[in-house]
Amino acid sequence: MNDPELQALLDAIAVHGKTAKGGLNRLAASREEGAARDELGAWLRAREFGIRVDSVGNLFATLELAGKDAPWVLTGSHLDSQPHGGRFDGAYGVIGACVAADRIRRTSAGGFRRNLAVVSWTNEEGARFAPSLLGSGVYAGQYEAAFARSRSDAAGITLGEALQAIGYSGSDQGPADPACYVELHIEQGPALERAGATIGVVEGNWGTVKFIVRFEGRAAHTGPTAMAERRDALLAAGHAIVACRALSDRTGGALLSSVGRLDIAPNSTNIVAGSVDLYAEFRAIDPAMLEGACAAFERAAAEAAEVAGVALSITRPTDRPAGTFDPSMRALIEAEAKRKGYRSLRLDTVAGHDAIQLRRRCPSAMIFVPSAAGISHNEEEFTLSEDLAAGVDVLEGVLRSLLSAAT
Amino acid sequence: MNDPELQALLDAIAVHGKTAKGGLNRLAASREEGAARDELGAWLRAREFGIRVDSVGNLFATLELAGKDAPWVLTGSHLDSQPHGGRFDGAYGVIGACVAADRIRRTSAGGFRRNLAVVSWTNEEGARFAPSLLGSGVYAGQYEAAFARSRSDAAGITLGEALQAIGYSGSDQGPADPACYVELHIEQGPALERAGATIGVVEGNWGTVKFIVRFEGRAAHTGPTAMAERRDALLAAGHAIVACRALSDRTGGALLSSVGRLDIAPNSTNIVAGSVDLYAEFRAIDPAMLEGACAAFERAAAEAAEVAGVALSITRPTDRPAGTFDPSMRALIEAEAKRKGYRSLRLDTVAGHDAIQLRRRCPSAMIFVPSAAGISHNEEEFTLSEDLAAGVDVLEGVLRSLLSAAT
Repeated sequence: MNDPELQALLDAIAVHGKTAKGGLNRLAASREEGAARDELGAWLRAREFGIRVDSVGNLFATLELAGKDAPWVLTGSHLDSQPHGGRFDGAYGVIGACVAADRIRRTSAGGFRRNLAVVSWTNEEGARFAPSLLGSGVYAGQYEAAFARSRSDAAGITLGEALQAIGYSGSDQGPADPACYVELHIEQGPALERAGATIGVVEGNWGTVKFIVRFEGRAAHTGPTAMAERRDALLAAGHAIVACRALSDRTGGALLSSVGRLDIAPNSTNIVAGSVDLYAEFRAIDPAMLEGACAAFERAAAEAAEVAGVALSITRPTDRPAGTFDPSMRALIEAEAKRKGYRSLRLDTVAGHDAIQLRRRCPSAMIFVPSAAGISHNEEEFTLSEDLAAGVDVLEGVLRSLLSAAT
Repeated sequence: MNDPELQALLDAIAVHGKTAKGGLNRLAASREEGAARDELGAWLRAREFGIRVDSVGNLFATLELAGKDAPWVLTGSHLDSQPHGGRFDGAYGVIGACVAADRIRRTSAGGFRRNLAVVSWTNEEGARFAPSLLGSGVYAGQYEAAFARSRSDAAGITLGEALQAIGYSGSDQGPADPACYVELHIEQGPALERAGATIGVVEGNWGTVKFIVRFEGRAAHTGPTAMAERRDALLAAGHAIVACRALSDRTGGALLSSVGRLDIAPNSTNIVAGSVDLYAEFRAIDPAMLEGACAAFERAAAEAAEVAGVALSITRPTDRPAGTFDPSMRALIEAEAKRKGYRSLRLDTVAGHDAIQLRRRCPSAMIFVPSAAGISHNEEEFTLSEDLAAGVDVLEGVLRSLLSAAT
C-alpha cells in the first residue's frame, strides 16, 4: 500500500541536488543539502516540532511528549548523499521518521513516558569530508566537535565553514539523555528482495577497515625518462589495486575489498605520476579474517612501492569493529513487523550507518526495507513505494512502543 | 657565457603562469598563456616584427628580409605548459628564436634570399586539449582547422572559444611557402649532460602510440554489493597498468610504456568505480617492437576487462611513426656548433615536438640543449644559463645560413 504523505515529502526533498538521471548529488553541508534542510525544517515547524542544531550541524526535530525531564527516543538518518547517489539512502530514514513522528503527534492521547526526536546527522557519507559517520560520531562521543568542524574538503573548506555558509552551524545541544535510537534505512543489498521479505531486522554490522595509502614518486616526462629512472606512483597503485582484490578472491568473496578512489598528481597523459593517494577498504563479519587481510594488504602495499621505486605511507582513518544491535529492540522490530503482517528477515549490514555510532551512547537498532536489485550509491537506486510505506508503518509502531516503555 | 637579453625575456615571460615552486602552469589558450603572448607580442612589435595569428591561434612573428614573394624560414616552439611544468619546455624555443631573429634583424646588411618567421604553435602539450601538437598539425596539414577549434577541455570549453576569450582566434594565414623549419628545445632527457655536450643534433624521433582505454562497469556500494556482482572499472584499470609496465620490462626498457592518467567516475572511497578512462602510451625506435607491444596491450586490456566483468572500448588518438629529420639541416647544425666551439652529440628525441609535424610540409630539424638531470614535465626542470645562451647562439648561425641559401 502506498503512503501519499510520505511520497510527497520524499519527492519535495529529492528536488534539492537532483541529478539529470534522477539521482542525487547532495554532498554534506553543500548548498543543496542546506536547501533540503530548510525545506524539511519548514515542514517540521508547521507541525509544531521544535528544532535544535548543534555545533556540527546535527539537526534535531523534537516533540516533548513526556515533559522536558523525560529521556528521549531518537530516530533518523542523514540527508547528505554520494556525488552520484540515490534518492533513498539516508533521506528515507529522516523523512520516514518525520512522517511517523508527526502521526504520533497528531494521534497522541498522552501517556508517553519518553520524548521523541527525529535527527538528521551531518556527513554520514564521508564523500565530502572524511571520516564518514562524523555528526553521529560527535553525538556518540567518538569525536570532539572541534575535530569534526576542522575536517576539510578537497577545496580546503572546513566542515565548520561549510555549515556556517548554509546556516547550520548551531549552538544548541542534542538531547542529553537518549534512551535509545532506531534508524530506518534501505538495505543497499539484495537479500530482502531475494527472500521476498519487506522488513529487515538488522542483527549486527560487519567490521570495516579503511586505508589511505600514499605512494610518493617523482613526476617526469614519459618520453625521455628511461624506465629504470622512473618513480611511478600510479604503477604502485596498479599493483595495490590488484593485490586488494586478490585478498578477497582468496576468501571466495567472504572478505569484501575495494579500491574506489585514487587521487593522482598531476594526472596528465605524458607525465609519470608523482604521487597517488589510494583509498582501500576491507569488510568482514569475522574479525580474524579482517585483521589478517589488513596485515596482508599493508605488506602488499609495501611490495608495490618497492617494485615502483616510490615512498609509502599508510593511514587507517576508519577501523570499525563488527558488532550487534540491541537484542530487545531487534525483538520489538520483528514483533511489530509480524503484528502488521509484513514478512521480515534477520540480516547483517555490511555498510556503515549512524546507528553503529549511536550504539556507543544508547541501545540502538535498524530497520531495513528492500533495495531493487541491491543497487545503491548509484543514481539507479530504487525502492518500491509500498516497501517505503511498510518501513514507516513498522517504524511508527516501534516508536510508539519505545515511547511508552518504562525507563 | 650568459646572455642577459635572452635571460631577461625568459624571466619576463615566465611570470605568466608561474607556480609557487618556480615552475609553470600555463595551459594552452588559458588566461596565463594569453598574457605571455601579449607580453611577447609587445616585445616583438617594438622591434618591427609583423604579427599574424591564424584561426587556431598559431602566432607568427614575421621579418620580411627578402621581399614578400620569397619563401620563409620558420623557427619556434610553444608557450603552453603542462599543469605543473617547467619554465623551459617550449618557451625557450620561442623566446630563443625571438632573440636570435632580432639580432639578425638588427645586424642585417641585406642579401638574404628568404624571409624569417618565429612561430608559437598552439596546444603543443595536449594537456588541456587532445591531441597534442595541434596547432602545428593544422599548419602542416594533418588536421583541419575546424577540427582543432572543436577540441574541448575537461570543462567543455572548445579551443575556438578559449582562443576567442584571450584574443587569439585570428583570421591571418601563416606563410604559404615555408622553406624549412628549425626548432630549439631543451632535451628533456639526460644524454647531453651525461656526455658533457652542449648542443644536441636531433637525428630522428621515436615512434609513439597513445591509447585511451575506457572500462565501463557499474557504480555500486562497496559494502553490501557481493564481490561476484561487482563490475569494477578501477580493478580493470589496475590490471591494465600492471600489464602496460610488464610489456616494457619484457624488452629490458627498450620499449617505453606508461599510464599517467586515469579519469575515474565517481572516484569515491566506498563506491565501486563505474567507469575509468585510462591513458596509456608506448614509445620505441623500432617500429616492429612498438606495433607488437600495442597489439599485446590491446589483448591485455581485453583480459583486464574480462576479469573485472566490465565493458571495454579502445581508441588510439596518437599514432606517430618513428622518423628522421632533414639530413642537410642536421649537418648544418653540427657544423655551426663545431664552428662556434660547442661540443655536440647526435641523439634521438623520444618526446613529440612540433618539428615532427612540420616535417610533413617542409624540411625540418631540431637543436637540443641539456636538461639538468634530464628532469622535465616537472617544476624542477632546469637548464644552465650558459647552455641556454649556447643554443641561441647556434640557432642564430643556423638561421643566417638558411636565410642565405639558394631556394
